[in-house]
Amino acid sequence: MKNLAAKYGREMLVLRSSKKDNTVINIKGCAIGGEEIVVVAGPCAVENEEILKETAFKVRGSGAVILRAGAYKPRTSPYSFQGLGESGLKILAKIGEEMNMPVVTEVMDTEDIPLVAEYADILQVGARNMHNFALLRKLGRIDKPVVLKRGLSATIEEWLLAAEYILAGGNEKVILCERGIRTSEPWTRNTLDLSAVALVKELSHLPVLVDPSHATGIRNLVMPMARAAVAAGADGIMVEVHPNPDKALSDGEQSLTPRDFSLMMRDLEEIARACRRRLR
Amino acid sequence: MKNLAAKYGREMLVLRSSKKDNTVINIKGCAIGGEEIVVVAGPCAVENEEILKETAFKVRGSGAVILRAGAYKPRTSPYSFQGLGESGLKILAKIGEEMNMPVVTEVMDTEDIPLVAEYADILQVGARNMHNFALLRKLGRIDKPVVLKRGLSATIEEWLLAAEYILAGGNEKVILCERGIRTSEPWTRNTLDLSAVALVKELSHLPVLVDPSHATGIRNLVMPMARAAVAAGADGIMVEVHPNPDKALSDGEQSLTPRDFSLMMRDLEEIARACRRRLR
Amino acid sequence: MKNLAAKYGREMLVLRSSKKDNTVINIKGCAIGGEEIVVVAGPCAVENEEILKETAFKVRGSGAVILRAGAYKPRTSPYSFQGLGESGLKILAKIGEEMNMPVVTEVMDTEDIPLVAEYADILQVGARNMHNFALLRKLGRIDKPVVLKRGLSATIEEWLLAAEYILAGGNEKVILCERGIRTSEPWTRNTLDLSAVALVKELSHLPVLVDPSHATGIRNLVMPMARAAVAAGADGIMVEVHPNPDKALSDGEQSLTPRDFSLMMRDLEEIARACRRRLR
Amino acid sequence: MKNLAAKYGREMLVLRSSKKDNTVINIKGCAIGGEEIVVVAGPCAVENEEILKETAFKVRGSGAVILRAGAYKPRTSPYSFQGLGESGLKILAKIGEEMNMPVVTEVMDTEDIPLVAEYADILQVGARNMHNFALLRKLGRIDKPVVLKRGLSATIEEWLLAAEYILAGGNEKVILCERGIRTSEPWTRNTLDLSAVALVKELSHLPVLVDPSHATGIRNLVMPMARAAVAAGADGIMVEVHPNPDKALSDGEQSLTPRDFSLMMRDLEEIARACRRRLR
Repeated sequence: MKNLAAKYGREMLVLRSSKKDNTVINIKGCAIGGEEIVVVAGPCAVENEEILKETAFKVRGSGAVILRAGAYKPRTSPYSFQGLGESGLKILAKIGEEMNMPVVTEVMDTEDIPLVAEYADILQVGARNMHNFALLRKLGRIDKPVVLKRGLSATIEEWLLAAEYILAGGNEKVILCERGIRTSEPWTRNTLDLSAVALVKELSHLPVLVDPSHATGIRNLVMPMARAAVAAGADGIMVEVHPNPDKALSDGEQSLTPRDFSLMMRDLEEIARACRRRLR
Repeated sequence: MKNLAAKYGREMLVLRSSKKDNTVINIKGCAIGGEEIVVVAGPCAVENEEILKETAFKVRGSGAVILRAGAYKPRTSPYSFQGLGESGLKILAKIGEEMNMPVVTEVMDTEDIPLVAEYADILQVGARNMHNFALLRKLGRIDKPVVLKRGLSATIEEWLLAAEYILAGGNEKVILCERGIRTSEPWTRNTLDLSAVALVKELSHLPVLVDPSHATGIRNLVMPMARAAVAAGADGIMVEVHPNPDKALSDGEQSLTPRDFSLMMRDLEEIARACRRRLR
Repeated sequence: MKNLAAKYGREMLVLRSSKKDNTVINIKGCAIGGEEIVVVAGPCAVENEEILKETAFKVRGSGAVILRAGAYKPRTSPYSFQGLGESGLKILAKIGEEMNMPVVTEVMDTEDIPLVAEYADILQVGARNMHNFALLRKLGRIDKPVVLKRGLSATIEEWLLAAEYILAGGNEKVILCERGIRTSEPWTRNTLDLSAVALVKELSHLPVLVDPSHATGIRNLVMPMARAAVAAGADGIMVEVHPNPDKALSDGEQSLTPRDFSLMMRDLEEIARACRRRLR
Repeated sequence: MKNLAAKYGREMLVLRSSKKDNTVINIKGCAIGGEEIVVVAGPCAVENEEILKETAFKVRGSGAVILRAGAYKPRTSPYSFQGLGESGLKILAKIGEEMNMPVVTEVMDTEDIPLVAEYADILQVGARNMHNFALLRKLGRIDKPVVLKRGLSATIEEWLLAAEYILAGGNEKVILCERGIRTSEPWTRNTLDLSAVALVKELSHLPVLVDPSHATGIRNLVMPMARAAVAAGADGIMVEVHPNPDKALSDGEQSLTPRDFSLMMRDLEEIARACRRRLR
């Protein structure tokens, strides 16, 4: 395990052998990868300005520091809601500015990178695109942070090397995000792999977030898994919150209500303190 | 999901629909499944009296309340060390008594149940035998608690129904234990599924332990995963500790030293408090 | 891969390095592991004498040479039909004799080995018991052939070493049986791993059967998978046939009708010839 | 299972419920999806003109009808050989023309589609890009056939819906290709899922190829798996052949020599006949 330098004939930028200290990424005054635990929250998709604003207002009130929402949605079926595209980006940027929260959103196509980078503070590579090397390579040439979700069944090695694609291009602002892997367990959407979080924190200097919403697909599991993620050493949590989950256009069954979210934040506060860290 | 009554044509004893309150199992004054988090520790196998005694003495000193060690070892190869058998059971019982710690050990054969039950306070069904229904059925007829590890690739449904085999026989003292499932990730021995812990705590009244040693197979991951397990809602932790892991006859690379164990216990203390529980 | 001798410190009986030529197992004049492809067929469970007799009569008429049916059934729920036990064994032995077909049936408990060995010509270890080392060890001391199914998520290495347990005990008559492994594909019951069949035929001298019924769980897939298994190098096929699948007490949805079975046999005849083999 | 229309609120073009008869795709006189089994062969990557020409000449001589080779290679590490890019495309097109063989090659970036479509007769979506919906959508608007490999851990449902993205865009020329999925078996690169082939042939009208090279990663398994694939109902085989596998820049250990390939073709001829089909 782990002797990637020997295996690939080259020192890896992603590993602590190349850079000992934790990489801390600053986005509009918010630091990811430092001592503070960062919480990213928002609805699955930008649906309209009103819902996004309401969500942002509430999650910010409970302590979220970054706003998330998708304008381009990777959907299994071509007939499902695919996101609002550019108009979604505009709404997201506007609300982010109003709320004074940096925003993160997914980019799915190399051709969309300039557009998404214009509106978003952080660009996200979804699990389904973790092996999209053309996308990774081009994200290596921009000057914005990238959240890199672990692929649906990607090994830790592949995940680190996907990050290496971005670092090798010159962009050192990579934030890893564990969101569960595929297993033979059918009762949860995926199996959240917190060992991967602890192992990656040991091997790599990059910050690691955990997304318990996509990992479990079940609202009641989001809270305990967020707590467990912080206890395992994650640098932050990324969750879906919707003011009215039952009416969400996508992923409603895994979205927290703003009230659930506020309870979760209190729990995380305690766990962070027990780990000698604190919520930002 | 989860409508097992409809699927199997019968109310399940293992579910909260049959029994609302948590099952709390008392073993020589030690309660599993209540407010207190219980820590079970010891070497992988009984190797000899001296090593076991030293380990027991040290883990008890750091707060472990139950002693674990195998006399019958399920080994992949017939040529690997298979455990000391009955003489191992005797050593285990003797040290348990001297240290005033209840002992838990694995039973692998229906024919050995009477013998193992004579020496052990708790009988363990290993992951490889979770689907050994003959064994489960006979454990349903004894009057000792049973630790039931989740099978190598068992679904949560199958795990609960394996417990149901024991409960249906009349033995209500079943303690579930999550120990990782098989996935396509090769860097960890298994993938610890803490969502399963949170989900089973919601669905079932039975206590749930987590074994981070077998789940990860990597010493450095045992501590963060033990913390995460408590944060996810586990009722206890089961870990391998060996005074000299490099010389252990089995599983050395995942065993904690007594010193690691004592550090872990301090961490767990903090996490338990953050979860409004405490270590026993 | 595959240097098991080095890994386990000992030459493995199961490998061709210990025995170059194919092991051919003779059961009442029927040879498994030789040039002829052998077909084992019958209902999932012994339900009653009449149904078993009808099934045996029909499958024998289409070319099956060995009769299969379960008297002890490993069921996920303790409340599902668990098999007729000893009276099932008696029916099976009686019909086998009347039809002049050797019979194979599962043994689930070490204590049942003598009883099952009295009635059956071949004893089967089910997938759920592949890691039941106590059972394997005791089957190593009997003088009857054993069908060893691959475990639910067993690696090829573990499967071969499970066989080694039996060989090491002195029983060389082991027949391996691939029956699918667990994966994240939900549309089939398991994923039939025919590469494992080709690889095991290369590495080991033991005969290998394929069970396309349990592997797929879907009647329509049994025929193409049986053809593919023979093309991949399997020494035989083991399938479930029921005169009235919709009324079967277990596994009806994957059972062939006698008519399907007869069509399958014609297909297999052609494929066997294309592989320079023939059906027995 | 399979009621996708109900699940996604819309009839699916990919299913036989929308189009009963098999889709047959004609490429320069070569029909895929009809009665004839088609064999696609060539090296993993275009390395230089000489090697490609030698390979093409030999595989054509043994019966391959389509030439494959990668100009853009999806590699786990950014430091591994990434393919020759446009100059590779030119070499491939030139040799294809000289040998009178249609050529297939992978496209990894939406921006490269026009360029690749200029040189290739068939565009391939690799397993790592099966969920790259931007790529699929744009391939729906071109007028060239697309080989769509199944994702690393994609379910059959997701694979069919990925094809639906292309069909929904107006491009009906989709050829599915099974190439193994990720499982917990470490001795083979992936686990070839031939049940998926049989099931997809039943559910969909699209042609299905099988790639036993990537599925197994082991030269000796390519031949038996190619035979099994045809027996399972595949419409063709896609294999890696290299004149000197030990010196290949990528995937040498799974490449056939031209001599292996010629032996495989003889085997396939027999199996095809046994299935009442023939090699083209």
